[in-house]
Amino acid sequence: MSTEPLIPNRLDDERGALVILDQTLLPDRVRYLPLFTTREICRAIQTLQVRGAPAIGVAAAYGAYLAAKHAPQDDRKGFFAAFYEACDALAASRPTAVNLFWALKRMERCVAAHEEEPLSQITAALRREAEAIHREDEAQNLAISEHGLALLRPGDGILTHCNAGPIATSRYGTALGPILLGQERGYGFRVFADETRPLLQGARLTAFELQRAGVDVTLICDNMASAVMKNGWVQAVLVGCDRVAANGDTANKIGTSGVAILAKHYGIPFYVCGPTTTVDLDTPTGAQIPIEQRDPEEIRSLWYEKPMAPAGCGIYNPAFDVTDHSLIAGIVTEKGVARPPFAESLRGMLEK
Amino acid sequence: MSTEPLIPNRLDDERGALVILDQTLLPDRVRYLPLFTTREICRAIQTLQVRGAPAIGVAAAYGAYLAAKHAPQDDRKGFFAAFYEACDALAASRPTAVNLFWALKRMERCVAAHEEEPLSQITAALRREAEAIHREDEAQNLAISEHGLALLRPGDGILTHCNAGPIATSRYGTALGPILLGQERGYGFRVFADETRPLLQGARLTAFELQRAGVDVTLICDNMASAVMKNGWVQAVLVGCDRVAANGDTANKIGTSGVAILAKHYGIPFYVCGPTTTVDLDTPTGAQIPIEQRDPEEIRSLWYEKPMAPAGCGIYNPAFDVTDHSLIAGIVTEKGVARPPFAESLRGMLEK
Repeated sequence: MSTEPLIPNRLDDERGALVILDQTLLPDRVRYLPLFTTREICRAIQTLQVRGAPAIGVAAAYGAYLAAKHAPQDDRKGFFAAFYEACDALAASRPTAVNLFWALKRMERCVAAHEEEPLSQITAALRREAEAIHREDEAQNLAISEHGLALLRPGDGILTHCNAGPIATSRYGTALGPILLGQERGYGFRVFADETRPLLQGARLTAFELQRAGVDVTLICDNMASAVMKNGWVQAVLVGCDRVAANGDTANKIGTSGVAILAKHYGIPFYVCGPTTTVDLDTPTGAQIPIEQRDPEEIRSLWYEKPMAPAGCGIYNPAFDVTDHSLIAGIVTEKGVARPPFAESLRGMLEK
Repeated sequence: MSTEPLIPNRLDDERGALVILDQTLLPDRVRYLPLFTTREICRAIQTLQVRGAPAIGVAAAYGAYLAAKHAPQDDRKGFFAAFYEACDALAASRPTAVNLFWALKRMERCVAAHEEEPLSQITAALRREAEAIHREDEAQNLAISEHGLALLRPGDGILTHCNAGPIATSRYGTALGPILLGQERGYGFRVFADETRPLLQGARLTAFELQRAGVDVTLICDNMASAVMKNGWVQAVLVGCDRVAANGDTANKIGTSGVAILAKHYGIPFYVCGPTTTVDLDTPTGAQIPIEQRDPEEIRSLWYEKPMAPAGCGIYNPAFDVTDHSLIAGIVTEKGVARPPFAESLRGMLEK
């Protein structure tokens, strides 16, 4: 098995393309895909070819830069119109993860800061800004990994849901960061990966990434988490996040709130891992986080040779759920571990 | 869509066959399969062509009868050897559900009661005993349905896990019994069916059976139960059972214990439905119930065109889990609803 690092987002400036790893083909095939237009990038985000809150933030930043680069360089009005139109389209690609909006806001502020300059300089500033967002995410991942690792002991059993690994971010990952860093340092973790229906990010991506890194990983169906916890095999739960509200309520992949309730029942600490860019102080509680609803066919038939459910059967397919802050032991960011009460600890952390 | 009743087990005495509905082909195809030998019946139970604790009890009873029917009728020693060998093989086909052992014990007692009679009479007695087990299960299903329905109100939202409907039993089903009876009486339930990975009995069977009966059913992935409950859409959880220990601990399809913990968290009553033949007073607690482990390929690749997980990845695939009695609001049997403390209520119910 190859162990070359997998890169979810890479700028190919010469070709004017964002090169993404097509995550829908994993674990079968490692294929990189050049995306040239805003439309192509939006579609890749919608179809989860590029996914993971931090990774879609980076993809959107590069997308905004490429829109400027491909915009008319001799028509200021047309340039700005093309840039903002691209930002709007990218922002509409997925509604729940806040990193997307945060990254686009940074790109728009960058344009505002350079507004009077020649278009070529604005474009160059946008490239630097997107690259900075990318590099900062890498640095944040490493810091999250260190802070998360400090919560764990060698030999711990760790359960994770969905995929918050290197390909969902920029490097190490958020929830998988402490595990991968611990692996480098001989911690000998035993990891349980929820397969994460309907799109199986846990089976296809987390099990794949951890196995590549030599981690002792056991794949389970989502409904097996309770049995694994009851067996005494889990000492901590680590998950990523798509948006953290001001009170600590956390939107993450559908099923996360159930895992948190199980962890509480079995007395296992439940940790949310993500950069502070995922914390949205403008969203007071989880009730205000929009939850994306996806195509029923993801549940009914995707990846199957034959239908898994009767035709025409009603299906509910939310992409995310909200984990109540009362179920969360700590929120691990690049600035440290926020503890309850989160309304205070998160605000304090963001003001640092 | 056809609405002819689906019959999981039917004796074709002329051909000397047990005719089962091949449940692995649903919802795609309704195909009945004649099984002539003990080996064929064991294999059908192992591969879940016939499944559901009550239905495999009935299948085993017919299997024991057919073994006697096909045994040498001119050699008493050979006849008894063939009969008991068949019972041992059928008992070994699945380890968790207790109805299997209970049905076989009844068949063995029937042989003991007629031991001195001509072999043809013993065989005839075995046929009557198997048919009685089948008819009694039907009657019990109806009684369970009535007792369960009395716990529900018109318009209730009901969540169920796996499949405990007509094809898992003899008629109406256990957990689906109150729903189907309520449907006949215009209760207007809204039902949420967990798809139940890895084998998707909820998607393939429960959604299929309820849809055929005209019930308003919404299919969800197992990890969506928490979100659906949080939305306030669920007023009761109904599940079947494979074995209930003397203290009320209940083994049922993997994932059931997680649903029970979620229900407790959200303040939703969680009911276990099954005939008293599922209660095993000889098993003190859930810790003594053997849990069947199944083939990892069920998680890794079954029904998929391409692998869902990396080759060689560790997989844990228990077929059942145990729900702690403290999480159960009531156990609905044909004799009524046992309430906590179950150690007393179950014993009292079985002594009735």
